[in-house]
Amino acid sequence: MPELRKDPIVNRWVIISSERGKRPKDFSTPEKKTKYKSCPFCEGNEQLTPPEIMAHRKNSPDSPGWTLRVVPNKYPALTDEGGIEQETEGLYDKMNGIGTHEVVIESPDHNTELELLPQTQIVSSLEAFRERVLALKQNNRFKYILIFKNQGEPAGASLEHTHTQLIALPIVPEVVSEEIAGCKKHYDKKEHCIYCDLITQELKDGRRIVCQNEHFITLVPFAPRFPFEMWILPRIHSARFEECETSLLDALASLFKESLLRMRTVLNSPPYNYVFHTAPVNGNHYNYYHWHIEIMPKLTKMAGFEQGTGFYINPTVPEEDAKILREAQIKDK
Amino acid sequence: MPELRKDPIVNRWVIISSERGKRPKDFSTPEKKTKYKSCPFCEGNEQLTPPEIMAHRKNSPDSPGWTLRVVPNKYPALTDEGGIEQETEGLYDKMNGIGTHEVVIESPDHNTELELLPQTQIVSSLEAFRERVLALKQNNRFKYILIFKNQGEPAGASLEHTHTQLIALPIVPEVVSEEIAGCKKHYDKKEHCIYCDLITQELKDGRRIVCQNEHFITLVPFAPRFPFEMWILPRIHSARFEECETSLLDALASLFKESLLRMRTVLNSPPYNYVFHTAPVNGNHYNYYHWHIEIMPKLTKMAGFEQGTGFYINPTVPEEDAKILREAQIKDK
Repeated sequence: MPELRKDPIVNRWVIISSERGKRPKDFSTPEKKTKYKSCPFCEGNEQLTPPEIMAHRKNSPDSPGWTLRVVPNKYPALTDEGGIEQETEGLYDKMNGIGTHEVVIESPDHNTELELLPQTQIVSSLEAFRERVLALKQNNRFKYILIFKNQGEPAGASLEHTHTQLIALPIVPEVVSEEIAGCKKHYDKKEHCIYCDLITQELKDGRRIVCQNEHFITLVPFAPRFPFEMWILPRIHSARFEECETSLLDALASLFKESLLRMRTVLNSPPYNYVFHTAPVNGNHYNYYHWHIEIMPKLTKMAGFEQGTGFYINPTVPEEDAKILREAQIKDK
Repeated sequence: MPELRKDPIVNRWVIISSERGKRPKDFSTPEKKTKYKSCPFCEGNEQLTPPEIMAHRKNSPDSPGWTLRVVPNKYPALTDEGGIEQETEGLYDKMNGIGTHEVVIESPDHNTELELLPQTQIVSSLEAFRERVLALKQNNRFKYILIFKNQGEPAGASLEHTHTQLIALPIVPEVVSEEIAGCKKHYDKKEHCIYCDLITQELKDGRRIVCQNEHFITLVPFAPRFPFEMWILPRIHSARFEECETSLLDALASLFKESLLRMRTVLNSPPYNYVFHTAPVNGNHYNYYHWHIEIMPKLTKMAGFEQGTGFYINPTVPEEDAKILREAQIKDK
């Protein structure tokens, strides 16, 4: 019997369609990397990107000899030119697409992935994300800064060389506002952060836990939109990723790597997305919000049903996904 | 300069990323049909589906000799068994997946598409959709009935033989509630239906009109999520597709066919989804809501940015898309 589950924060319904009973091997295997001849993210091709914003390197900018580079996106979704102009046309509103679009290239090596990097290099990447968010926050035209990865062509990557994107937006996006509103509603009633309560309940239950360490926990959410979806949450309450102390980044890198490797092992290196969910960049403390990372392997397709309803159909059972991920024998750690 | 546009009904923001300036030929061509050997929707394979619910045929059920069949989905997302049971587990809510999932096979011919059928056969399909909705409305456990098509594998179709799906749901989906709430807000302020106002404004403007006839109009919306997205709207105000009179179905079939053929010509038979947006099945008249069909060619991928924000990035300009669709020389009409 299919089951309808509701996400407790954003009230999003998900159909757990267990009768379809998909197993990891039912999902297709992605292509292997091949097209690295003129990759603009490879070492030696630095002239193919706009001038770098920052880098972890010993020698001069935009030359070889680096371990991490941050560059502007050559085809930005938004640009930081001109003022914020709003215009109305009868029923319609529009505004300038003010923002920035940056790319963090986490390794000079074309034939690797974030999860295959040494832990110290993942710490470096997290530090770079944090540094760029802190810098972009200084621009008061930006209301939200999104950190996300598209890994693999089916997950929307146009370049296969490992990279993470940062987009600064002039508006707080709806997905974030709804999540914050859901948290506030719980806080107003219970005076607790809902994510803190969720962590307590999940640890007690145990069925959806994938892995954990002293500071972070990875779980399959109760109402996941996608098969093998995972969330990484800090155990300590905090509204913003960029306020994560350096001493915690090591623990985060360790669990991030382990979680991605578990997914990689179970699903045979699937395409995936991750998104950092963090509070908007304003003066509010958001003591009812809790930052986290959502990891979504790209195994199913958005189709008419999802478009028309906002519901998702998940052909796997979350507790079984978590068990498979938890028991996986990781190949590289 | 990219532009941010807001949908006036659901307040969804879209980034019109004109610098990416995609043209129809930049989108990939889909595969051709090939796998029809054991297709359960083909004439002669009637035993491969569950027993038919209705059909347009002369002879006995579940045998050859039909022009249209409606069958239960063999792998339903929801099923009509048992009662509506709700359960709470700490923070979490779940309920039984009560509903139905039906498939309308619009032609016995594997090598055709809805838009290539004679207009009379499209009228028959629309009549079948209407008949099934009217029948399913009798079950008071269903709160919403969704009509949609996934055409082509990239758009989520698991079978390539032309078909449309109907899913009855025990809840009014969020996408529908939000749309209705947006309409009500406008109505409360202006005492007009927002879609009626939108039609008036669009006809006066003209830049986003694709085609029209006496009773219906097809346009590219002001803030489309996807390149070459189109909406078909009835000129006469009405909240529900299933209340569409038989005398109007002919005009709808004509414009539906023409719109799909324009898309097919311009984009070289792309994969696509369509969704009927219609009012929930309850006693409310919804005089502020206006039913319509949304057609979305599948040319771009949902990626981390869309997941994390609810924003969409559209790499084409709506007014240019409409011009290309309007001026297309249709191959088959």
